[in-house]
Amino acid sequence: MDKINISNKFKMFEETWTPKIITELNGQQVKLAKLKGEFVWHNHEHEDELFYVVKGELILRFRESGTNEQTEVILKPGEMIVVPAGVDHKPIAHEECHVMLIEPAGIKHTGDVQHELTKDKLDWI
Amino acid sequence: MDKINISNKFKMFEETWTPKIITELNGQQVKLAKLKGEFVWHNHEHEDELFYVVKGELILRFRESGTNEQTEVILKPGEMIVVPAGVDHKPIAHEECHVMLIEPAGIKHTGDVQHELTKDKLDWI
Repeated sequence: MDKINISNKFKMFEETWTPKIITELNGQQVKLAKLKGEFVWHNHEHEDELFYVVKGELILRFRESGTNEQTEVILKPGEMIVVPAGVDHKPIAHEECHVMLIEPAGIKHTGDVQHELTKDKLDWI
Repeated sequence: MDKINISNKFKMFEETWTPKIITELNGQQVKLAKLKGEFVWHNHEHEDELFYVVKGELILRFRESGTNEQTEVILKPGEMIVVPAGVDHKPIAHEECHVMLIEPAGIKHTGDVQHELTKDKLDWI
């Protein structure tokens, strides 16, 4: 039962779009990720996902299933959003952005989309 | 699906030891609380609980069940800890401290201990 210093954990990796697990509780995992550029459109059929921005700016684009209608939310440090299960979303960061994620253990970060960015197994740091 | 600004949410209440729910995901709730003074010893039999310090300093004291052996951890802003289910803990804040909590929906913040600080129903803000 050790404390976790977020800032120190972010110093432990450089890769973008590769969430690192830092702790878990009640079947959910807390992860840190560095984002830069555009991620792939995806959703998580059964899992809600929380994004909390620690540094930089995160654009989350959403689209209605089966349409091309898109909306977006811009998150700055100290801001969070929960993306409900089933909602198509696409994270974008024009400059490097640091986020904390909360989602169920075992979830794929690209959802059902198999993509070059898909990681089959995430590391703990 | 609105974004949540943590700093703005903390401006919406003054009471200490009264967690406010700000969002939920996968059966877990994210709460904000202002702490000052000493809370009551308690545990949550089946639920892990995450403490993340946003402002100030939080002392979490732990004791081995059935003994008087105590240890403590001091958390500063940007630091978190998960208190596993069943572990006796007592939060202490000498000066006002702002924390984010993550725990299952419906959990009592004083565990099985009925205390003057126990709130039967928490508000959403």
